[in-house]
Amino acid sequence: MFTRRTMLATGAALAAMPAVAKPSPLDHIKAIHRSLVCLDTHLDTPANFARPGWDIMQRHSAADFSQVDYPRMVEGGLDGGFFAIYTPQGPLTPDGMMAARDAALLRAAAIREMVARNAAHFELAFKPQDAARIAAKNKRIVYQSIENSYPLGTDVTLLRSFYALGVRMAGPIHFKDNQLGDSATDKSRTWKGLSPMGHDWLALCNELGIVPDASHSSDDVFDQMVAGSKTPIILSHSGCRAVHDHPRNIDDARMKTLADTGGVIQINSLSAYLIATPDNPEREKAQGAIYGKLRGLSDMSPADAKKALAEAGAAMKALDAKYPEPRATFEDYMAHMLHALKLVGPEHVGVGADWDGGGGVTGMEDCASNWKITARLIKEGFSEDDLKKIWSGNVLRVLQAAEDGRAKPAAPPVSGGGGE
Amino acid sequence: MFTRRTMLATGAALAAMPAVAKPSPLDHIKAIHRSLVCLDTHLDTPANFARPGWDIMQRHSAADFSQVDYPRMVEGGLDGGFFAIYTPQGPLTPDGMMAARDAALLRAAAIREMVARNAAHFELAFKPQDAARIAAKNKRIVYQSIENSYPLGTDVTLLRSFYALGVRMAGPIHFKDNQLGDSATDKSRTWKGLSPMGHDWLALCNELGIVPDASHSSDDVFDQMVAGSKTPIILSHSGCRAVHDHPRNIDDARMKTLADTGGVIQINSLSAYLIATPDNPEREKAQGAIYGKLRGLSDMSPADAKKALAEAGAAMKALDAKYPEPRATFEDYMAHMLHALKLVGPEHVGVGADWDGGGGVTGMEDCASNWKITARLIKEGFSEDDLKKIWSGNVLRVLQAAEDGRAKPAAPPVSGGGGE
Repeated sequence: MFTRRTMLATGAALAAMPAVAKPSPLDHIKAIHRSLVCLDTHLDTPANFARPGWDIMQRHSAADFSQVDYPRMVEGGLDGGFFAIYTPQGPLTPDGMMAARDAALLRAAAIREMVARNAAHFELAFKPQDAARIAAKNKRIVYQSIENSYPLGTDVTLLRSFYALGVRMAGPIHFKDNQLGDSATDKSRTWKGLSPMGHDWLALCNELGIVPDASHSSDDVFDQMVAGSKTPIILSHSGCRAVHDHPRNIDDARMKTLADTGGVIQINSLSAYLIATPDNPEREKAQGAIYGKLRGLSDMSPADAKKALAEAGAAMKALDAKYPEPRATFEDYMAHMLHALKLVGPEHVGVGADWDGGGGVTGMEDCASNWKITARLIKEGFSEDDLKKIWSGNVLRVLQAAEDGRAKPAAPPVSGGGGE
Repeated sequence: MFTRRTMLATGAALAAMPAVAKPSPLDHIKAIHRSLVCLDTHLDTPANFARPGWDIMQRHSAADFSQVDYPRMVEGGLDGGFFAIYTPQGPLTPDGMMAARDAALLRAAAIREMVARNAAHFELAFKPQDAARIAAKNKRIVYQSIENSYPLGTDVTLLRSFYALGVRMAGPIHFKDNQLGDSATDKSRTWKGLSPMGHDWLALCNELGIVPDASHSSDDVFDQMVAGSKTPIILSHSGCRAVHDHPRNIDDARMKTLADTGGVIQINSLSAYLIATPDNPEREKAQGAIYGKLRGLSDMSPADAKKALAEAGAAMKALDAKYPEPRATFEDYMAHMLHALKLVGPEHVGVGADWDGGGGVTGMEDCASNWKITARLIKEGFSEDDLKKIWSGNVLRVLQAAEDGRAKPAAPPVSGGGGE
């Protein structure tokens, strides 16, 4: 069996091997890729844990609305990442917030249950150094993150309990403005940035040692997070506005500020954020109906769930035929990544492909294709040292900074002065 | 392998078998015992889940400070019960309450992780009918309960999230008065019963379908819970004050009220509540020091934890030699149970032995001895039908009533008018 230890041979060492054992260029690239600890900072895979009969140890497919499982993680050389406790934005009412809290705590428990169920192949990670330790055992690395802090309701201190459960990265907002601040995709600009509770939330992230994540936040929120955070922030799954002008992407000036303050942008593979797609309300409505039918999945029998997924897959195919929509390619994805790398360098760029949350491009449909990013970056001349940073070094540096800043409210910012 | 199906033979059927196959009286009793679904309503076993190297699938011993594991559950014919999310009472400060919330949510997750880790042998239960369904698969039944609702802090609505995580029984209070009401073992009588938040808590238990548990509550709280609850309440681990006058036990009049309103008392096996033990502050202090050393167990290596447990075991032996203390016997335990059965009948009595929480008497040191209760009750002339009620029928009836009363705030009390 392949083990990490045997693969630590560098390209140079491999090149020095006798010709009879010389690997093919592709094998060589894959060997380099597998020698790296590869983390994706935004995995929405926990959304699948409640699917009846769904087992992360079984191979699924993107056609099944699934992009991450153990077999494909191994195939793609994905060692793990941040598994998201994602909660859809609901009404800003006591009932809405309570329902979100229930859902988020159940989702947090579901991540721990998945790891407990598959303890031979997955392990929970909490500290930066856990990544290498777990990878050395050839297990997959499960950090936990929050996408949308709406479940905190009006009690920001509940973030402490999520930290206790293992959360080490959190974003305040999702598609719509909420009690913490403004969303990138909501034109209301309710708070002109973070709300007062949002500022408390940010201070508490710093106090606890949680990496603040500005993906999905408005530009104002981004600015206030960079300025207000005592440690570097992350964009766990975002793109470059210079490549495609979309509110979910970040402009060059802000990306430079992010880098100047020690932060990192992890490139998203969600097609509609990567390239221009014309507005198509009919398609959107029909797609909403298809996905709506999958919402009750967790209450179905395994057989019914399988049937519902097959029907949804067929409906999506029919939809693509009826309302064709341009779809981003792997090269479009790499255009965002290479732009970011050119702008801020390999110390400030990584991968957050939004698997199981909307990610996926033609040529990179799921995490089994992760190695292609490495291949393309090697072709661009990036070194193994660069690749180490891009695939996990950067996010672990940011996590270490959060950890170092923990409960030292009076300490100076870790890097660069926070942009104030 | 033994299966439940084959053991459904009744005593009468066994007696009718040809003499060659006639089982011994003890085998006969054990066969009856195993044919029952046996639930204990107060298992503190989750406290052991965080012990390094501790595995519920391995056999431990009472000398190891462990009374419940899978092998002993099978041996004792214990099918499962209510696994407690127990939180020690801490200071009634924001910090104290937040720390308790973290601990309780982690404990809740730990219960689910244990089941996920051992899914072939344990299964989570939520509804009354889950017990029989899970037992039929020869798996152990894991209901969840809360012992001490202190972790709710000042936000009673957090109980909703615990319900979402699976909690179906909850007690408001532990050793000391807290924000919800007065403790049986605290002389302060801070609230003269339930606090205003305690009344809200009770109403929310009813709304959600959580069985209110008055063990550890003061008499005033008991009275207010019986009067205020729309569905029957439980004493998940208590004894009879008529047998031994201790505040953790209940007097006959209240036990009758409990029964009249459809509730149930589950008999505790904690020695100091069963018989008179003289005050011995030196012993108590020394014992506190021994248990104090075990508090850091979860942060130790497996080897250090094993050593610490062995040392604590030896220290307890030395303590027993230095300060001998009377210890209750199995007959003392049965004296409480038989008194309750005589007073309120087999529809209102069950078993909540407080395993891993202080339970255990000479002759019944852990759950492997559970069958002895059945043997003793058969000797007293109780029928299999009575045993079915005592071992799970009663608590499942109370759980069913809570479920039936769920979200019907205007409905009349299920049984007897609530004692008002």
